[in-house]
Amino acid sequence: MALKTARQYLESLNDGRVVYCDGERVPDVTKHPILNITNNWVAMDYVMSNDPKYQALLTDLDADGERVAFALQPQKTREDLLRLREVVKLWARATFGKPPGAKFVAKDGLNAVTVVSRRVDKKHGTTYAANVESFRKYLQKNDLAFAMGLTDVKGDRSLSPSQQVQHKDFYVRIVEERPDGIVVSGAKTHISQVAACNEVLIAPCHAMKAEDKDYAVAFAIPVNAQGITIISAEPEVSPGYDLFDHPITGSVYINDALIVFDNVFIPSERIFLKGEWEFAGQVAYMFANFHRLSAETYKAVELELVTGAAMLMAEYNGIEKKAHVREKLTWLTMYTEMIETLGRAAAEHCIQETDGDFVYPNPMIANICKYQFADNWHTATKYLQDIAGGIVATAPSSKDYHNPETHALMEKYFAGKAGIATEDRLRMVKLVRDLTSAYEDVLTIHAEGSLEAQKLSILVLADFERYKAAAMRAARIKTDKTHALFAELPAFPPQF
Amino acid sequence: MALKTARQYLESLNDGRVVYCDGERVPDVTKHPILNITNNWVAMDYVMSNDPKYQALLTDLDADGERVAFALQPQKTREDLLRLREVVKLWARATFGKPPGAKFVAKDGLNAVTVVSRRVDKKHGTTYAANVESFRKYLQKNDLAFAMGLTDVKGDRSLSPSQQVQHKDFYVRIVEERPDGIVVSGAKTHISQVAACNEVLIAPCHAMKAEDKDYAVAFAIPVNAQGITIISAEPEVSPGYDLFDHPITGSVYINDALIVFDNVFIPSERIFLKGEWEFAGQVAYMFANFHRLSAETYKAVELELVTGAAMLMAEYNGIEKKAHVREKLTWLTMYTEMIETLGRAAAEHCIQETDGDFVYPNPMIANICKYQFADNWHTATKYLQDIAGGIVATAPSSKDYHNPETHALMEKYFAGKAGIATEDRLRMVKLVRDLTSAYEDVLTIHAEGSLEAQKLSILVLADFERYKAAAMRAARIKTDKTHALFAELPAFPPQF
Amino acid sequence: MALKTARQYLESLNDGRVVYCDGERVPDVTKHPILNITNNWVAMDYVMSNDPKYQALLTDLDADGERVAFALQPQKTREDLLRLREVVKLWARATFGKPPGAKFVAKDGLNAVTVVSRRVDKKHGTTYAANVESFRKYLQKNDLAFAMGLTDVKGDRSLSPSQQVQHKDFYVRIVEERPDGIVVSGAKTHISQVAACNEVLIAPCHAMKAEDKDYAVAFAIPVNAQGITIISAEPEVSPGYDLFDHPITGSVYINDALIVFDNVFIPSERIFLKGEWEFAGQVAYMFANFHRLSAETYKAVELELVTGAAMLMAEYNGIEKKAHVREKLTWLTMYTEMIETLGRAAAEHCIQETDGDFVYPNPMIANICKYQFADNWHTATKYLQDIAGGIVATAPSSKDYHNPETHALMEKYFAGKAGIATEDRLRMVKLVRDLTSAYEDVLTIHAEGSLEAQKLSILVLADFERYKAAAMRAARIKTDKTHALFAELPAFPPQF
Amino acid sequence: MALKTARQYLESLNDGRVVYCDGERVPDVTKHPILNITNNWVAMDYVMSNDPKYQALLTDLDADGERVAFALQPQKTREDLLRLREVVKLWARATFGKPPGAKFVAKDGLNAVTVVSRRVDKKHGTTYAANVESFRKYLQKNDLAFAMGLTDVKGDRSLSPSQQVQHKDFYVRIVEERPDGIVVSGAKTHISQVAACNEVLIAPCHAMKAEDKDYAVAFAIPVNAQGITIISAEPEVSPGYDLFDHPITGSVYINDALIVFDNVFIPSERIFLKGEWEFAGQVAYMFANFHRLSAETYKAVELELVTGAAMLMAEYNGIEKKAHVREKLTWLTMYTEMIETLGRAAAEHCIQETDGDFVYPNPMIANICKYQFADNWHTATKYLQDIAGGIVATAPSSKDYHNPETHALMEKYFAGKAGIATEDRLRMVKLVRDLTSAYEDVLTIHAEGSLEAQKLSILVLADFERYKAAAMRAARIKTDKTHALFAELPAFPPQF
Repeated sequence: MALKTARQYLESLNDGRVVYCDGERVPDVTKHPILNITNNWVAMDYVMSNDPKYQALLTDLDADGERVAFALQPQKTREDLLRLREVVKLWARATFGKPPGAKFVAKDGLNAVTVVSRRVDKKHGTTYAANVESFRKYLQKNDLAFAMGLTDVKGDRSLSPSQQVQHKDFYVRIVEERPDGIVVSGAKTHISQVAACNEVLIAPCHAMKAEDKDYAVAFAIPVNAQGITIISAEPEVSPGYDLFDHPITGSVYINDALIVFDNVFIPSERIFLKGEWEFAGQVAYMFANFHRLSAETYKAVELELVTGAAMLMAEYNGIEKKAHVREKLTWLTMYTEMIETLGRAAAEHCIQETDGDFVYPNPMIANICKYQFADNWHTATKYLQDIAGGIVATAPSSKDYHNPETHALMEKYFAGKAGIATEDRLRMVKLVRDLTSAYEDVLTIHAEGSLEAQKLSILVLADFERYKAAAMRAARIKTDKTHALFAELPAFPPQF
Repeated sequence: MALKTARQYLESLNDGRVVYCDGERVPDVTKHPILNITNNWVAMDYVMSNDPKYQALLTDLDADGERVAFALQPQKTREDLLRLREVVKLWARATFGKPPGAKFVAKDGLNAVTVVSRRVDKKHGTTYAANVESFRKYLQKNDLAFAMGLTDVKGDRSLSPSQQVQHKDFYVRIVEERPDGIVVSGAKTHISQVAACNEVLIAPCHAMKAEDKDYAVAFAIPVNAQGITIISAEPEVSPGYDLFDHPITGSVYINDALIVFDNVFIPSERIFLKGEWEFAGQVAYMFANFHRLSAETYKAVELELVTGAAMLMAEYNGIEKKAHVREKLTWLTMYTEMIETLGRAAAEHCIQETDGDFVYPNPMIANICKYQFADNWHTATKYLQDIAGGIVATAPSSKDYHNPETHALMEKYFAGKAGIATEDRLRMVKLVRDLTSAYEDVLTIHAEGSLEAQKLSILVLADFERYKAAAMRAARIKTDKTHALFAELPAFPPQF
Repeated sequence: MALKTARQYLESLNDGRVVYCDGERVPDVTKHPILNITNNWVAMDYVMSNDPKYQALLTDLDADGERVAFALQPQKTREDLLRLREVVKLWARATFGKPPGAKFVAKDGLNAVTVVSRRVDKKHGTTYAANVESFRKYLQKNDLAFAMGLTDVKGDRSLSPSQQVQHKDFYVRIVEERPDGIVVSGAKTHISQVAACNEVLIAPCHAMKAEDKDYAVAFAIPVNAQGITIISAEPEVSPGYDLFDHPITGSVYINDALIVFDNVFIPSERIFLKGEWEFAGQVAYMFANFHRLSAETYKAVELELVTGAAMLMAEYNGIEKKAHVREKLTWLTMYTEMIETLGRAAAEHCIQETDGDFVYPNPMIANICKYQFADNWHTATKYLQDIAGGIVATAPSSKDYHNPETHALMEKYFAGKAGIATEDRLRMVKLVRDLTSAYEDVLTIHAEGSLEAQKLSILVLADFERYKAAAMRAARIKTDKTHALFAELPAFPPQF
Repeated sequence: MALKTARQYLESLNDGRVVYCDGERVPDVTKHPILNITNNWVAMDYVMSNDPKYQALLTDLDADGERVAFALQPQKTREDLLRLREVVKLWARATFGKPPGAKFVAKDGLNAVTVVSRRVDKKHGTTYAANVESFRKYLQKNDLAFAMGLTDVKGDRSLSPSQQVQHKDFYVRIVEERPDGIVVSGAKTHISQVAACNEVLIAPCHAMKAEDKDYAVAFAIPVNAQGITIISAEPEVSPGYDLFDHPITGSVYINDALIVFDNVFIPSERIFLKGEWEFAGQVAYMFANFHRLSAETYKAVELELVTGAAMLMAEYNGIEKKAHVREKLTWLTMYTEMIETLGRAAAEHCIQETDGDFVYPNPMIANICKYQFADNWHTATKYLQDIAGGIVATAPSSKDYHNPETHALMEKYFAGKAGIATEDRLRMVKLVRDLTSAYEDVLTIHAEGSLEAQKLSILVLADFERYKAAAMRAARIKTDKTHALFAELPAFPPQF
């Protein structure tokens, strides 16, 4: 078949999966008012892949001549990465800055296990690489949505997986080996849109030691497998929400759920790592390498939205000429374009991965990009809220606006500059509230790695030998181990 | 009677007032699940005033020997201001950083009209001062809750009240004069807890010119007066909310409502300004002078909460020893204590108001305090969210925690450090989400004047003559108009 | 001849020019201990251009087969710009972050008059373009050093050139027209290394109006022309300085001098603009467009030095493992690499200038790059000084270190970590002082345009239509004038 | 005698002391052009103490009815601290923000040994307290200038004093005990104005362990004692400097010298600690407690200068109405007044020291004050330099201004707004350069403890139990160990 329609995708989710949301078991996720926010969001990938306007960008023909998602192909060149950026930007523009996740996150996990499985096979004589390729083909041929399960619940963060006190399941682990597979238990958290996917790909979230061998496990499994329970994140909206009041939160419920594995059987052909603990960290590291393109791409699209909302609120309030407002709009523009430029540069100056004919974004640049995005976000929200005004906190509900008894009063008194529809001003106010929610804040800081993770990467990647050589030459300190860039420079001041 | 009980207060609100909330007319605000959040919050003032433990602090005996709210007395000394700080801190500590507003905001408006009415009477021979005193006595004797209506809806901010294009009611104005009073129309916005008050005090929000004479109006009126409509701010919670998930938003709904005046009659004895346009700005200015004590006091209490939540999340997650976490906790502590110190200093170095035997906080220090609070808030939320973790965005609902089908899974997998109850960790996570909401952000920036308003005040109050004298002396620039502090200093380098 | 040797260049400066330095007329700039710091710095361009190791990068063969400076050729392609970056980086690395200015600044002025002269000729039938080409050829064939005179002294900045009160020469202007040329008077300030150049290229620093016609003048003239006086910037070092104590200030004295024109005759063939006031702003604007590559390139080289000094001081002091030091090193690395990445991206995404087959760096990215560099500089110096320690302020002179009476004491007591030579530590300390001087600070802020200039450019270049379209779509505001990127996106949530 | 005149003070310095400056042994410090900058600066204390205008503030009558320096009396009350602030502010205003150091730093060391000597005596039966009092009386009766030697040179900072590798003298230590005293060796660094003082007080810079017993030593000794060598910090100016060009650096050379002890004999009656290692840290800690008043006081005076220079440069350049300039002036004002307010609050809310009837500034507030000062300084210099313009880097020397050949040109072309003398503008430009030097930067960061030291203190002093109690009550977490402020608050939402 290859490409699914949005409807086929939606129907595929009614498969008996065990999902809870807001205190209740959901018998059919395709009928649930809140879970459908997620389903519809994820469905946008299918809508656009079937749309001739976007098909050339979003899909490729596979070896069999079947049309498959471009995102599921390995990225082999700088041009592939730049095209992938266009894919992510299209996705993000279509859905207000958050790429619908049918393949968005998990493709990077697939790349990671592709690279690492070859290394494991080489050392241990395993056949994981073939398993990965078989899984990739299965995803492509069936156009499946799949989620990435990386972050374990972790318990006490100062203890390793096997040292945990209360129980041993704070990290997903192998509890039994069988001839035809393994049995796993544990839980992963923050698993974006997993309840709206067909499959989930599981991998370790950091390096393991020998004693944590059972936790060095990677595999894929259908979301409706026996023993899997999904508990949804608390929704941001209640049933009966209106898109006027909740333009983002009513459209994009990422549902970063908890997924629990209670003695789940994984067949051998879906296993990509099984106890080879020295490779656990590599999977996590490679996932990060590939996944950096995501954050570095969609964030700039999100910032278009923020900066645009700031400009519109300034205009609607009649304050766009004020010096402090212009200052803030300048800052927002700089922030937006800097993130775009850094993100694009990370792709343009990508790194060739030797084990597997892959490229991934330049880690130094990509980390800087993500750090700058996350570190400046709260300043951006401050500026946006400052320009929008106290009305962001105090506007009545759109239900009041639609209530005939109060409509005229709101129409009259919430008007801004002449020529601007009151409704437009109120809609923009609601957008600002959604854009600056605690949920957005936290996502900014923690998704795709925390600020501290980026700082650590930057320090590790720093070229201190070059920096030091520059300083030693200027200070006229003699040294044997200077850097090539400085080794042969002529004397300064010159001798002539 | 003087002091009311909480129950008497609550019952007093069922008086036929016209209030809308979330799209519906509310027949009796004391029966409404959401409006009762506000009512109960405001009621805390009554609960504590009747509690012997707090009565000495919160109340005084009036000239008749009746017990009345201390907050309604004019503050005449530095000690009064320091006591008022203790009052505000008690209120704020009791209700999570937000002082319940029975008298909290409007007392400052009362002070403002007290001062300005005497000036108007002096110039124009009016009798507004007597009106103010009569209103004060009425409030005291009946222990009424009253709200302050200052901010007009404003329309196009680049135009004055009388220049507005769409209609003339963007600012509250006199539409008719009668022998026994005036008739007013217009609307005020962001009117905190007005639907939970008995009276509302209205005053101009900025200076007026001669052509805006009709907008120079101040008065008090019962909230249930004919022609008044209140449209509530969109609530943060839905009916059926749980305090586990919504510890702040389920307890404190300030309900900064829109209040509309449609030809409302104001009797003469409740009028405090009527067309004396040259005094309009003074009322607004004096309100700000008095009201600065509020922000400079309760903000530090709010920051206790934020810093405490950060420390607890660090401990619950087992990361309190990490260098970057310690750095953030240090910053939060400094922020908290700096705001407390600056706020207290503003009261300690208060200014004597000559027209009326009043004192108010030092405006330079108070503006710095508010600015520092608001300018640093988003950094504080960034740090708090960083320490708390992605779980702030992704935790399931407390309904899932209470659901027997999922309780054990959540209990097991959301555990943090051994010895910490999972429930406590989840409750703290929810508190962090509430503390860092867009509502809190916007309140921080816009309540008690925007960042730009503080900057303007600071510039106006700057003692540039002193600063310039210091620089000119150091640069050895001769000048006739040096500052007294520098005028007689000995030559340096010295001659001896 | 084409390429000059360093010695030939130096000798060419003894040409009777009128130069003052530190209160005295300098009879021969090639014999002056302080001015020779500049001369030697500029000479590095000649040293390296004659060095086979760098000749391929720094020079090209011209149409006659003669070797000429690549920097004097117009940049026609993205590859040219990237090569020019390598040239600037080599220059900057050789001389501690400051490219020696034989052609560094003025080449951008040459490009600017090249572009604009064609436009003027087209409109006015002048022959300025030929004058420019003739001047370019003259520079190339004689391998001349030339300076750029852009910034006028300006007097009262709130007044235009012709409105100035005290006199009319605050901007360079035409005071007389003659058949064979013009006579000019006025002064330009901050003219880097002009006393070490053969020629100076003069152009207006901003747009002019019709009444400022006499100020719309661009030309080139030898530095020793009759009527020119140069007053040097106060030197940072005194005669007898030691490179140990003054590693940067003793090597790079940019000497941003004042150049005064007192009725200087300019022959017709060296005139590039003469009263065509509507083009004055274009020259300044085009200069900025071309010159942005400079700042965006050498700044990253300067930051290598700063970051390297920070790392070495940390190691010498034995504190490189401390958490706060690692945090600061991370920040410095990020700053360094971000500036490099943004600078490179500006070249990679360059703009094609239609009038003249030129390319110049992307203005949005280049402005962001310069702004980020300048805005963060003072934080970088704070971190560097923090890591280096109080010794930066308190170290004795190298003369004390070389004094046999005190050498042993300093050797013993200024030792840091075992294995580090005391002399190296002291040298690095002195480098830090030089790197964080007020001179460096001011250069960072004001060279290549102030922070405010960058902010203004960014605001002007902002793509608000795109940003607004993103926000309007999310807020579901209907609009006719959406942006192409958003115009045809499918409905979201989807209909299927 | 008690009070000395300035001349008597100066003459007292010609006592055979061994001082080096800029590579040479100085035979008589009172005749040295550079060292006299320091001498004259310190002399200002004597000038003002003898001036009837200041005598009431600066001096007290002692028990014998002799007039002695107030600064040498122990501060016993809040009022004493507030008076001491006035003393420090007068000193600082007189000498451009840097209090002349006759007693400024060392008085805090004297207070520290006063407190700790009593504790040591109590435990060990020593008689150090009597030694301290005898030394105090000696200082008072002879009106001596004395310096504080706290910071050791330290060598490898990751090693304790006794662990050092290269030699054992990186910290001052006892090398021999004699019946009548001790012999010490080692060196202290950053010893402000020691070459311009009569005595030096030495104390340990941090806590010691048993094995570092020999380093637990405190004493006082005349600066000309046998075996003492002082090596001056590299001067900022050369002989022949002009106060026009160097308004601060030519007036205030703090000369934070290295002082070396080479087997110096200390008589028993001047010893305040001798091997009682468990008290070493207490001396350092107590010094910090007392010394915090200094920084928290003079910094605000320094900021007057900075803010005044910014305002004057804005006016001289004609840009004081520009929005970005007003924004920066506002920030500078806020910074200035915030430091003043925090500093004053630290004194107003002082702490009573039980061992010795002393008070010292509130450590939490004082640390916040110093941190805020130091952390914001580089931003202040950025703003000042931004307003002042590139001329700060490029102005010619005042020698050029005074040179008749160039005077008229400079007068004409460096004019700013009409009505401002060119000379005044140039003088202010030079002041800005001096105010933003690397020396000032480093002093700001490192004097009175580094930024990291303040952060550590703040964290240690944080009242986390209060903060946590606030958060737990809001999150409805039950706990036994709540804070008194929260323990008895009524239930919220209320029950009634």
